[in-house]
Amino acid sequence: MSEEKINDADGLNERHNARMARKKEVVDKKIEAAKRNAGVVVITCGNGKGKSSSAFGMAARALGHGMKVGVVQFIKGAIATGEENFFRRFPDEISFHVMGEGYTWETQNRERDVANAEKAWQRAQVLLADPAVGLVVLDELNIALKYKYLDVQQVIADLQARPEMQHVVITGRGVPPELIAVADTVTEMQPIKHAFANGIAAQQGVEW
Amino acid sequence: MSEEKINDADGLNERHNARMARKKEVVDKKIEAAKRNAGVVVITCGNGKGKSSSAFGMAARALGHGMKVGVVQFIKGAIATGEENFFRRFPDEISFHVMGEGYTWETQNRERDVANAEKAWQRAQVLLADPAVGLVVLDELNIALKYKYLDVQQVIADLQARPEMQHVVITGRGVPPELIAVADTVTEMQPIKHAFANGIAAQQGVEW
Repeated sequence: MSEEKINDADGLNERHNARMARKKEVVDKKIEAAKRNAGVVVITCGNGKGKSSSAFGMAARALGHGMKVGVVQFIKGAIATGEENFFRRFPDEISFHVMGEGYTWETQNRERDVANAEKAWQRAQVLLADPAVGLVVLDELNIALKYKYLDVQQVIADLQARPEMQHVVITGRGVPPELIAVADTVTEMQPIKHAFANGIAAQQGVEW
Repeated sequence: MSEEKINDADGLNERHNARMARKKEVVDKKIEAAKRNAGVVVITCGNGKGKSSSAFGMAARALGHGMKVGVVQFIKGAIATGEENFFRRFPDEISFHVMGEGYTWETQNRERDVANAEKAWQRAQVLLADPAVGLVVLDELNIALKYKYLDVQQVIADLQARPEMQHVVITGRGVPPELIAVADTVTEMQPIKHAFANGIAAQQGVEW
C-alpha cells in the first residue's frame, strides 16, 4: 500500500504539508497564550468507559516524571483491581488507599457508606496537605458527592487550600455542578457503544 | 458533619437503602445477561482530555493481572512522555514502541508521516499476532487513519484476525466510522472545560 500513498500525482502530500504549516501557526499561538504552570483539578465524569482508567494513566505519567502520587478509592474495595495490584508494587512512590466496600447497590447501607466516605476524605485531606505529593487521584469521589455522603463545600475548601503545584484527578458519575465550577479541566466520557450491552462481561485488564 | 448525616430523622438512609436494593436487582439482571468472555476492541476518541491516559490506565490494570502488554505510539515521539519513562521500567511485561515523530503540524511532511505509520503498523501486526500479549495499545492510531496514512480496511482485517482473548485499545481524534462499527466499546471524550483555554500550559504528569 505504501507506493500508492507516497505517489503524489494528485498533490495530496503537498496540500497536506501546506495545511499542517497553517495549523502549526494556529497551534503555536494557542501554546504561546497558555504558558502558566499551575496545579490543576481534572474531573472525568459521564456514563462512558474510561474515567478511572484515565486517572490511573495520569498516575503512571506522574510516576514516569518522578512525581509522588497518592490514590484514594472512595467506592471500590469489594474486589482487588488490576490497578491496585500493580501500583502497590511501588509503595515509596505511590500510596494507594482503598476505602470503599463496593458499589452503593451492593452495600445497601447508607450509614456505613457515609462513615467509609468520611474516613476516605480524611485520608484525602492528608494527601491534599502534603506538598511532596504531585498528583492526588480521588477515584469515584463524584459518587460519594452525588449521594451526599460528603459535603461538597468541605471538599472544595480542601481542594482550594492544597499546595499550588499539586494536581488532582477526580472521577465518577454524578459530579455536582459546584465541583465543575472550581475544576480546571473536565471531560465527560460519553458512551457511543459498550461491549456489556452486547453480552460481554466486564473484562479484567480493561474494566478492572 | 458526620452526626447530621447519620441522624436519620427524615428517613434518608432508609429510602437510600431501599432504592439501592431495587437498583441491585436491575444491575444483577444486566450482569446475568452479559457473561461471555471475549477480547474487546476499545476506542477512545473525541476532543476531550483522557483518551491516551485511559489507555495507559488499562495497561496498568492489565499488568496488575499478570497480563503482557504491547504499546505502539503512532504520532507521539518528539518528546519523552511520562508513560514511556514509566512503562519502560518493565521490559519483560510491556513492550513500548514509540514510532511517531510528533504531531502532524510539526512534521509537515506527509510522506515521512506515512512511512512512519506503516512501520508502526508492522510493529502492531506483530503484537496482534501474538496470543501471549493480552492487551495491545495503539495510541493515536485514529489520527493516522484520519489522514489516511494507513488503510482502514487493512487495520480492520488485522484486528479481526487477532487472538480471541486479546484486548485492543485504540486512541485519538478522528476515528473513522468503519472502525467504530467493528469496535466493542467506544467512548467519546467530550471537553466540558480545559485548563489550556484558561492560560495554563500542558502539565507534566497530567497531559504528558
